Amino acid sequence: MQHRGRFITLEGGEGVGKSTNLVMVAEYLESCGFEVVRTREPGGTPRAEAIRELLLDPTSQEPLDDDAELLLVFAARAQHLARVVRPALERGAWVVCDRFTDATFAYQGGGRGLDKTRIGELEAFVQQGLTPDLTLLLDMPMAVSRRRLEGRLDRDGGQRDRFEQERGDFFEAVRDAYLERAAAAPERVQVINADQSLDAVRRDLRTVLERRLEAWA
Amino acid sequence: MQHRGRFITLEGGEGVGKSTNLVMVAEYLESCGFEVVRTREPGGTPRAEAIRELLLDPTSQEPLDDDAELLLVFAARAQHLARVVRPALERGAWVVCDRFTDATFAYQGGGRGLDKTRIGELEAFVQQGLTPDLTLLLDMPMAVSRRRLEGRLDRDGGQRDRFEQERGDFFEAVRDAYLERAAAAPERVQVINADQSLDAVRRDLRTVLERRLEAWA
Repeated sequence: MQHRGRFITLEGGEGVGKSTNLVMVAEYLESCGFEVVRTREPGGTPRAEAIRELLLDPTSQEPLDDDAELLLVFAARAQHLARVVRPALERGAWVVCDRFTDATFAYQGGGRGLDKTRIGELEAFVQQGLTPDLTLLLDMPMAVSRRRLEGRLDRDGGQRDRFEQERGDFFEAVRDAYLERAAAAPERVQVINADQSLDAVRRDLRTVLERRLEAWA
Repeated sequence: MQHRGRFITLEGGEGVGKSTNLVMVAEYLESCGFEVVRTREPGGTPRAEAIRELLLDPTSQEPLDDDAELLLVFAARAQHLARVVRPALERGAWVVCDRFTDATFAYQGGGRGLDKTRIGELEAFVQQGLTPDLTLLLDMPMAVSRRRLEGRLDRDGGQRDRFEQERGDFFEAVRDAYLERAAAAPERVQVINADQSLDAVRRDLRTVLERRLEAWA
């Protein structure tokens, strides 16, 4: 008898199809009879979403200090864990979250080049040992995901946020850092090839989920 | 020859007269020929002031998690140090700051009862050894400062922020924690009796500053 729900995170750079596939993952788990909470980081609560706004705000002329960015990410995370993730897991619900701490290692660590030991210190401070039970990393070559992202941004016509404004080498470093995280925790992080048809990606995701559910049963 | 400016902080609970006396301290130092940067925490830069808004916002129905509050305080501090305090000190200016990390130990540590070891971890993380050269702690019995604060809030007629809404025992704990910080660092923290006439407080502040300038000369 399992005493708490499972915590599943979806990770990957811009344009790899996280949002679409998150719906599929959540619906699949619901079809298995679980209560599923769909959420995202940074954000997931009104206060955490307000912190997200500060993080993404492209209008300020004032550069955001790297440490300040990192502390804002973890402030939003502390709020989200306290108000959404931990209560859900404790009542036995499953949490499916668009991005979590792997993204901090990828974006702030890989992309911005922040010291990963420092990120690990804040991770320990805030999470107190809580880590995802399963992380689905949607991976594709940077050139492909950039093309998809550019297409979406052109269609939306909106202003790019602070991260969408970054250049190619930033996203290359993000991808490398994600793959490094996966290599360091191969049991937890399942790399999914996202450079195939949506049907093929879904089939792969479903295979991973089925195996994991079996192992957890 | 001094290679950098001095970092002076003013501390104390609500209603002890920090703002008025900060002007006096800054003007006195300017009269001595120093470039003086007057600033405050949380805040001091546009982005840090935006974080301050999140911290003080009394309108949200969602309680702010203790860790999230602490991380927001230090996010604002990292931004303020990077953009204002360190550049000023490095060019030889003096910084006079309304509240700094002693306030975090007093409000979040004393008032909210957060683990002071955890606050110390973030202090070390963000400040990397930078501490004020001198801290002027304006102290008065809680009953007196509360009366002053209530008078000001009644005159202003505005909504109270998240801290002004706290009760008497919160502010008693804030004061105790401030005095504890002073006792632990008697060289750095000078306690000024703020429960006297403004003239008497100014005379005491000036005496402390004169002695310190002499010692630093």
